[in-house]
Amino acid sequence: MVGIQEIASYIPEKRISNYNKKEKFGITDDFIKNKIGVESVAVKDDSEDCSDLCVKAFQNLQKKITIDKDEIDIIVVVTQNPDYNLPHTSAIVHGQLDLPQSCAAFDVSLGCSGFVYGMSVIESFMKCNNMKSGLLFTSDPYSKIIDVNDKNTSLLFGDAATVSLFSHDPVYVSKEFLFGTKGKHYHDLICENKTLTMNGRAISTFGRKLIPAEIMKLLDKIELSIDEIDQFLFHPGSLFMIKSLAHVLNLDESKYVYDILHYGNTVSSSIPILLEKQFIETKNKLLLLSGFGVGLSWGNAVIKRVK
Amino acid sequence: MVGIQEIASYIPEKRISNYNKKEKFGITDDFIKNKIGVESVAVKDDSEDCSDLCVKAFQNLQKKITIDKDEIDIIVVVTQNPDYNLPHTSAIVHGQLDLPQSCAAFDVSLGCSGFVYGMSVIESFMKCNNMKSGLLFTSDPYSKIIDVNDKNTSLLFGDAATVSLFSHDPVYVSKEFLFGTKGKHYHDLICENKTLTMNGRAISTFGRKLIPAEIMKLLDKIELSIDEIDQFLFHPGSLFMIKSLAHVLNLDESKYVYDILHYGNTVSSSIPILLEKQFIETKNKLLLLSGFGVGLSWGNAVIKRVK
Repeated sequence: MVGIQEIASYIPEKRISNYNKKEKFGITDDFIKNKIGVESVAVKDDSEDCSDLCVKAFQNLQKKITIDKDEIDIIVVVTQNPDYNLPHTSAIVHGQLDLPQSCAAFDVSLGCSGFVYGMSVIESFMKCNNMKSGLLFTSDPYSKIIDVNDKNTSLLFGDAATVSLFSHDPVYVSKEFLFGTKGKHYHDLICENKTLTMNGRAISTFGRKLIPAEIMKLLDKIELSIDEIDQFLFHPGSLFMIKSLAHVLNLDESKYVYDILHYGNTVSSSIPILLEKQFIETKNKLLLLSGFGVGLSWGNAVIKRVK
Repeated sequence: MVGIQEIASYIPEKRISNYNKKEKFGITDDFIKNKIGVESVAVKDDSEDCSDLCVKAFQNLQKKITIDKDEIDIIVVVTQNPDYNLPHTSAIVHGQLDLPQSCAAFDVSLGCSGFVYGMSVIESFMKCNNMKSGLLFTSDPYSKIIDVNDKNTSLLFGDAATVSLFSHDPVYVSKEFLFGTKGKHYHDLICENKTLTMNGRAISTFGRKLIPAEIMKLLDKIELSIDEIDQFLFHPGSLFMIKSLAHVLNLDESKYVYDILHYGNTVSSSIPILLEKQFIETKNKLLLLSGFGVGLSWGNAVIKRVK
């Protein structure tokens, strides 16, 4: 039974405040607090790259749990802002962590749906190749591609990385996944000429219209009602987005979390940052993870606490 | 039983001859024919990008087999030269092929070991998510990053793409995989500032010294002798490399193929281009696939013909 044994994250200390941008973008305190729900975004140091954020997340993991690096069979890095396009960032992380030669390593290119996909990728790869220990990293430093004059993106996205230890001694195991793609709309969130652009309205509509139906489809598949889910970990695109999803699904406020006020939307790291906190909240047995964005792509999963 | 039902490839028609570069690089006919073993490299049209090569490979697949696109559950694109870093190329291909919304899509970032890894990634993902049909693309147009004045790389790498249909009606199924990484040596093959550089000597030594031992380890694991393998499909790094591997493993010339003379080393597409031809050579039951390069990374697999 392969699942997640432990998670750690790294959020850089440096912040850029959205309150200093009110005049520039003609926005109000209310917009910052209650519409996007991001007061400041976390930004990595210029000297750090994607792999460095992964290594720092791993160092935080080592503070929580003893890891025998020689036992790691596979590492996967989910990113769309790698150190280089070639080689893959996982190879660099492999070298920096001094992992054994027998360790498999590859990157998965996905955005906000990346953690949910990544879980299924590493779990199934480990199961089918009889592997015992694996590390799933998420690290997507959008500060590399953000235009600071773009209101649509610069108020929203923050830098972070996470690492999840997958093993045969899990705390959470996946019950079921459901994935999907609307490739014809790929242009709504794109990085051209090293600069990110987003059609915020299109992404927001996509999330609110499609994701609730996909969540119900997943729950139907495994014959669970929405009330049986203890906690919903939505990818926190923005506060408006999450509130819309909760409204459509008729969720009580106690059933979902939104806490990116002080660091921003960290793309594929957003869900594992929320999940990390669930390791302490032992009362929630069934969680629904919902990631959606770049692609356009989505991945939903129900995971179960087993200890 | 998930495995490969059919393969198709697309190699662009345009060629750049290495014979026209003899003076520029101070090389001989003998060097071209017998050392690197590449007379000309295939180059895509300027108007084509990574996703376009995938679509053309898919069109060639449709000439071989009828595909109900609505039945495709997943597509994976292996590339390190995507159309954009964000979104993933698989989303663009998904849109171009008009695949259903329920189809999962992600990219895997790997180089010359990418097809062998990709096989295991898509197979295990399909098995664990109860999927019936999947497409594994390889498309890594190195012409985007080749410096035409670099002797180390411009004589060697060619453009191509392949697509493999994975289903429950396979011709080949995998028996066993073995992967590995030497991340500390990642700098030996790297793309910085949009330009590829390669430490040819280091890559060659890595291949010749490490790969034969890894192949023997894989064969030991499944208790097969080297003589029981009907055909070895090595990633054709260069003719010198393949001959060295065959020499160390003491292989008869009939046991391996080298046919990149007229199109070059096509990175992750090189092994599936060789495998495509095995669909006609029905006498070979057990194949060993060996991919190695960027990372440094390697993946070896034994696959078996089942019909």
